[in-house]
Amino acid sequence: MKILVAYSGGLDTSVLLTWLRETYSADVIAYCADVGQDEELDGLEDKALQTGASKCFIGDLKESFSRDFIFPMVQAQAVYEGRYLLGTSIARPCITQGMVEVARAEGADAIAHGATGKGNDQVRFELSAASLAPEIQCIAPWRDARFRSAFPGRSEMIAYAEAHNIPVRASMKKPYSMDRNLLHISFEAGMLEDPWFDATTPENRDMYVLSVSPEDAPDRPEYVQILFETGNAVGIQCDRLGEILAAHPEVEATGERDGYTLLSPYGIMRVLNRLGGNHGIGRIDIVENRFVGMKSRGVYETPGGTILYAAHRDLETLTMDREAMHIRDSLIPKYAQLVYNGFWFAPEREAIQALVNSTQQSVSGEVRLKLYKGNVMEAGRRSPLSLYSEDVATMEGGAEDAYNQDDATGFIALNALRLKASARQSN
Amino acid sequence: MKILVAYSGGLDTSVLLTWLRETYSADVIAYCADVGQDEELDGLEDKALQTGASKCFIGDLKESFSRDFIFPMVQAQAVYEGRYLLGTSIARPCITQGMVEVARAEGADAIAHGATGKGNDQVRFELSAASLAPEIQCIAPWRDARFRSAFPGRSEMIAYAEAHNIPVRASMKKPYSMDRNLLHISFEAGMLEDPWFDATTPENRDMYVLSVSPEDAPDRPEYVQILFETGNAVGIQCDRLGEILAAHPEVEATGERDGYTLLSPYGIMRVLNRLGGNHGIGRIDIVENRFVGMKSRGVYETPGGTILYAAHRDLETLTMDREAMHIRDSLIPKYAQLVYNGFWFAPEREAIQALVNSTQQSVSGEVRLKLYKGNVMEAGRRSPLSLYSEDVATMEGGAEDAYNQDDATGFIALNALRLKASARQSN
Amino acid sequence: MKILVAYSGGLDTSVLLTWLRETYSADVIAYCADVGQDEELDGLEDKALQTGASKCFIGDLKESFSRDFIFPMVQAQAVYEGRYLLGTSIARPCITQGMVEVARAEGADAIAHGATGKGNDQVRFELSAASLAPEIQCIAPWRDARFRSAFPGRSEMIAYAEAHNIPVRASMKKPYSMDRNLLHISFEAGMLEDPWFDATTPENRDMYVLSVSPEDAPDRPEYVQILFETGNAVGIQCDRLGEILAAHPEVEATGERDGYTLLSPYGIMRVLNRLGGNHGIGRIDIVENRFVGMKSRGVYETPGGTILYAAHRDLETLTMDREAMHIRDSLIPKYAQLVYNGFWFAPEREAIQALVNSTQQSVSGEVRLKLYKGNVMEAGRRSPLSLYSEDVATMEGGAEDAYNQDDATGFIALNALRLKASARQSN
Amino acid sequence: MKILVAYSGGLDTSVLLTWLRETYSADVIAYCADVGQDEELDGLEDKALQTGASKCFIGDLKESFSRDFIFPMVQAQAVYEGRYLLGTSIARPCITQGMVEVARAEGADAIAHGATGKGNDQVRFELSAASLAPEIQCIAPWRDARFRSAFPGRSEMIAYAEAHNIPVRASMKKPYSMDRNLLHISFEAGMLEDPWFDATTPENRDMYVLSVSPEDAPDRPEYVQILFETGNAVGIQCDRLGEILAAHPEVEATGERDGYTLLSPYGIMRVLNRLGGNHGIGRIDIVENRFVGMKSRGVYETPGGTILYAAHRDLETLTMDREAMHIRDSLIPKYAQLVYNGFWFAPEREAIQALVNSTQQSVSGEVRLKLYKGNVMEAGRRSPLSLYSEDVATMEGGAEDAYNQDDATGFIALNALRLKASARQSN
Repeated sequence: MKILVAYSGGLDTSVLLTWLRETYSADVIAYCADVGQDEELDGLEDKALQTGASKCFIGDLKESFSRDFIFPMVQAQAVYEGRYLLGTSIARPCITQGMVEVARAEGADAIAHGATGKGNDQVRFELSAASLAPEIQCIAPWRDARFRSAFPGRSEMIAYAEAHNIPVRASMKKPYSMDRNLLHISFEAGMLEDPWFDATTPENRDMYVLSVSPEDAPDRPEYVQILFETGNAVGIQCDRLGEILAAHPEVEATGERDGYTLLSPYGIMRVLNRLGGNHGIGRIDIVENRFVGMKSRGVYETPGGTILYAAHRDLETLTMDREAMHIRDSLIPKYAQLVYNGFWFAPEREAIQALVNSTQQSVSGEVRLKLYKGNVMEAGRRSPLSLYSEDVATMEGGAEDAYNQDDATGFIALNALRLKASARQSN
Repeated sequence: MKILVAYSGGLDTSVLLTWLRETYSADVIAYCADVGQDEELDGLEDKALQTGASKCFIGDLKESFSRDFIFPMVQAQAVYEGRYLLGTSIARPCITQGMVEVARAEGADAIAHGATGKGNDQVRFELSAASLAPEIQCIAPWRDARFRSAFPGRSEMIAYAEAHNIPVRASMKKPYSMDRNLLHISFEAGMLEDPWFDATTPENRDMYVLSVSPEDAPDRPEYVQILFETGNAVGIQCDRLGEILAAHPEVEATGERDGYTLLSPYGIMRVLNRLGGNHGIGRIDIVENRFVGMKSRGVYETPGGTILYAAHRDLETLTMDREAMHIRDSLIPKYAQLVYNGFWFAPEREAIQALVNSTQQSVSGEVRLKLYKGNVMEAGRRSPLSLYSEDVATMEGGAEDAYNQDDATGFIALNALRLKASARQSN
Repeated sequence: MKILVAYSGGLDTSVLLTWLRETYSADVIAYCADVGQDEELDGLEDKALQTGASKCFIGDLKESFSRDFIFPMVQAQAVYEGRYLLGTSIARPCITQGMVEVARAEGADAIAHGATGKGNDQVRFELSAASLAPEIQCIAPWRDARFRSAFPGRSEMIAYAEAHNIPVRASMKKPYSMDRNLLHISFEAGMLEDPWFDATTPENRDMYVLSVSPEDAPDRPEYVQILFETGNAVGIQCDRLGEILAAHPEVEATGERDGYTLLSPYGIMRVLNRLGGNHGIGRIDIVENRFVGMKSRGVYETPGGTILYAAHRDLETLTMDREAMHIRDSLIPKYAQLVYNGFWFAPEREAIQALVNSTQQSVSGEVRLKLYKGNVMEAGRRSPLSLYSEDVATMEGGAEDAYNQDDATGFIALNALRLKASARQSN
Repeated sequence: MKILVAYSGGLDTSVLLTWLRETYSADVIAYCADVGQDEELDGLEDKALQTGASKCFIGDLKESFSRDFIFPMVQAQAVYEGRYLLGTSIARPCITQGMVEVARAEGADAIAHGATGKGNDQVRFELSAASLAPEIQCIAPWRDARFRSAFPGRSEMIAYAEAHNIPVRASMKKPYSMDRNLLHISFEAGMLEDPWFDATTPENRDMYVLSVSPEDAPDRPEYVQILFETGNAVGIQCDRLGEILAAHPEVEATGERDGYTLLSPYGIMRVLNRLGGNHGIGRIDIVENRFVGMKSRGVYETPGGTILYAAHRDLETLTMDREAMHIRDSLIPKYAQLVYNGFWFAPEREAIQALVNSTQQSVSGEVRLKLYKGNVMEAGRRSPLSLYSEDVATMEGGAEDAYNQDDATGFIALNALRLKASARQSN
């Protein structure tokens, strides 16, 4: 039997890998997806091989994650339960896709993950796999009573690692758990399990990773302009852009247009994360409903994503037809629920995406935003495809042929017709 | 003929009142709704009578506006096009209701308003009237070509006022128009008609009325706690409450509970407005789609409403069932569209409200928020009706009888069943 | 341990009862719900006691089933996947409610059912129980490997029954399975498992129970008129009513009004079933999607329900506001899915029901239908609450004050405004 | 000025044409759309020229109407208010498209139609035109007070026709109005304006055009099989096909496959209309809500369309994913409303169509139906893309690896989790 294991080099997945190898007498291959979590990947292969993997793959999914997952989701303006930008949810199908490709190439019989039996990630992983590769088995050791009884706590894991010569760096366990990628970082569990716990106090300041607190953000606002084409951000203009790009040598500008530096989706995310993080943008603290039936509490940082959602929505209002937007908006809760619950590759998500895609053809233009201490302020938008007409909208008269006020009389009269009938019915 | 006219004492409605009296040879009665716009109402009756009204009514609708309009709308979490909290929209049915009551009591044949033929307010006014009093005629002078040709501009109005001894105070016309009430103030038209115009710059600082700019807000955060019962805010706890209440002698505390000062809906709005305004909370700048078919641009301040929406949503996540919330959320775009378009009293709004009401029975508890320079940060929530269970949610083991991780295996398998069938179908 | 078992007196539930008593060393109580399935209930108690039950309860749920389950569902016009009137689905929460009441009164620790692990009924039963009595355990022997291995087929059951002196009448197994109640009868499995199998042929004529085939129905049409009050059928008028009531002595007329015989919900169902069955009304043959993830094929007879749905919808079109109806209609798929999946007692079904209820206040009046060989033909509807106005609708001129054709010009112009803007945008 | 006029050769449009020519001093061109209404088109051009048209165009839209309008609408399973198959509604955008093409080619400034100011057709016509050609004016003489006062009744029209030498054949006015095309025929107004009027009686038998009454249909059922590819009917198999095709020489079979005769969309419609009409299929009698705000009553015959909708839905249940279908179904009321209201070419209809299209990729296969006296009975369906699996669905055991009944335990447990929490909350 050949098993491809999701592997990060940390204690948990190292133990998992070894346990799978022993329990299943399997050839175990390690897979580490790079979705922008900014963890050290150097030396990972050595570590995996030392831990007993026969091979180790590192999948650079950062561009695909941005282009094929984050961007379509932004086009849908997907927000779960009114607030959560789905940072963890959207990474799972991307990672699973990466694993399935390697699993098929390597002829693996199964893929295994280290998600617990209580969370959403197990579902997202396995439902993605069901759609992509129904023939490949999914193994979830945390749902295996043998694994759970072998490792009731962290100390048993450390002992197991030592006993098996698994090279694990001793690290202090944080009083919460984290999941990080290019779109966000999440904090859950531990002290956060009390929903009344205040995570915004100065003493909790150190928990945050991608952003400063609004209180610690610069006293001067900063402007950023984003250029969109058919619903996708393609260029950025801001004073500090050179400085930011210098810090991210892997991001290459793909050109210039009208003062904008053109960037790939990944490049866009990197730059916006820097800007948002610097200004304390994108933190939320929520109680959310998991697919498996319970409520949980999480704290999230989504600096760049928060800017991107705001900019995209702002441009839409200028260039998207009213009713097309309202239809799309009415599907946001459903779409977000699908992403959250792990149905990214399901036919219904693809059907809604087709609708969303149809609405994005006109979403091209520019948005100007002002960033300041946690705020993303709209500061202007313009587009060659603008549906806004000063001639029509103006309250200062305006051409009668653009808009004839008398038309409103008939418009209201016919809209009122059924209301009057209903009013008379009730009396 | 007897006409009840919406009257504010300003130039426009004064001219309107006189014009209606002359044009229709009518007995004209003035009506001014107090929905918390904080305009001077002393002397208004004298002014109206001097202008030719036979009577003048001032309707104190502040409590009703809060209790019967704002609060039910907050329960629906109604947001128009993802951002607008419907401050102007929700006031119109309330004002119309006030007018209809007086019109009926006075035996008026018609009610008249000063809204233009291009905007939403004419529609909201007349559709509300159609539902409440289908037998009463609506007169909209701005949609009357005679009126428009008599008053092509402001100077003709001033000349007309002078010629008719209408007592109008000379005031500088602002380069934009405003609409204010207890929930918000809006700015439209004039310089704002260019959607690329940046309304956040220091030189536009003076436009704003209800809030300071985030940049000018205090450097120290402030906490506020709100107590909810079945979806309605009923009490507030914050350090500065005494000070705020002292500034609003008309607001009376109705009791104390668990450290909260109990307030009527109107009192809640007043206090939250103060808090939000002080911290630069609730400004937005949007392009929106009017019901009459055009896009327009508006800037809004909704300080207290923004806090209230955030607090209410946060408590919902703790106490409302997941699927009930998702159903409610899926109807938000529709509900908001109905409010925006003026269908408050329509059967379909009432039907959705019945659904919303059903979801609010468990929304009782407390929310703690931290206000800082434009940010409303969630800082804790708790409730005796909480659906959150630390026993179930905890990642630290937890009782197996509260949640059996093995159940997830079957749960995922059956959710995956159709996905696997679809996957095989495509191949 | 005390277990309340769903019991019908047939082979399956008799074996189940005994097996539970032995396996759990439990005090086992039998419960048989009468939801109008028209099975012999005389002697059932004796049989249950002989089989080992300590007690036997027969719950007469026919009136409650009609009033609290079928009728609210009809008000929602719930149809699953465009065709299925949910006859089996809607009975499950009713039965579970009956069992939970007895279980509580008797102090039972668990309730047990004989539904398989593949179908929807197990889910409906257990989700209903979860809502009504979260503290009571559900036992599903068919999902217990011990039970399945003990009874791989029918012959093992018969042997077991003989060995345990279970009094079971030998009956020929039909080549399909059935579920019957007051609303419908379903046929599944066996020969029907091939979706290409034609169940309408003369040789399959004997399968049907509640209705004749359209081909065998009378050559003369029959009229029936139904009287509704706030969305509920309350009276019936038809030539053969006396004859039908004579055949159902348990149905009592509760009065007369305007030529209608007033009947309880149960009485209505009985009469409509007779009428529909006689005219070959209400058969469908569908492939449907089960909640557990698979497609299955079913044939259903719903004679009275089909008439009731048609009549109710027809009256709605006369008395219900357009937009209220469209909102309700847009929720039909969701509502039907909830009923089908077993979420009758869930907060989200109750929330939608509140919306539905709000729309039904005006659904009072009369509907005339013509029944003929499978057809339910609309033949007239009238109501004191009718929203239809001949004055307005007439094409023969009509009063201009009822409807001014010029109003349509403005109505169309403003509806066209955004379309023209979109058209210009695309060019 | 050049005006293109919708022209049928009848009294109304002949008068209209002349009146337009005189009133606008315009060059008037006649346009007659052939959407399968089966009216005499020979001699139409002569008549138009005699009536004063400078040119006359006959647009053969039958194939386009079927392929680009009816078929996509069937894919959406669009039904208005639960019953109306939108036969009139869907023809309007098709006709308008035909006219706009000619108007542009001829350089017309305006297009004119003969729809009244009370109905839906004016709206459908003008909104379609707004989307297709915002620069072309729409003229609706019936909304012109001059026209209405010139022609208060039919006799004035006849007098006008005689005075202007308009060649109109004297015809008895029917006591109702009709609109016919390939999909259906509608009857409205006149005696039908009383919603209690029974249109199914033998004395009204002569009104119907496309179908016999169920009572008059053959006593022998007839089978038909329809072959679908990606949601579109492409072939038909039935005993009488040769006979039917012989009666429609303009319909050409495009090939044979697996016993099916392949036909174009238009050919499909023709054949199904014959079959349905012969068996009394597709009559409905409804009260419906017009877009202009009133209720109206209509009787419709949609013989072929009724069969097509039924067949298409039946195949979908076999081949379409459950959740994709439910999403599509939830949009049916909205989609149908858009078609009914005239928004065929609007961005929101196109967006929903994109979603629908995404769901149709797997809707290929065969459906067998039995036609009998008004009934369309499902009699089998099969497909190489079937998602139905006898292995999984079977109640006779079945492979455990296809479906493990134990999985249902976890599935139910996690679905019940939130219900139990809610139940405990309420207590």
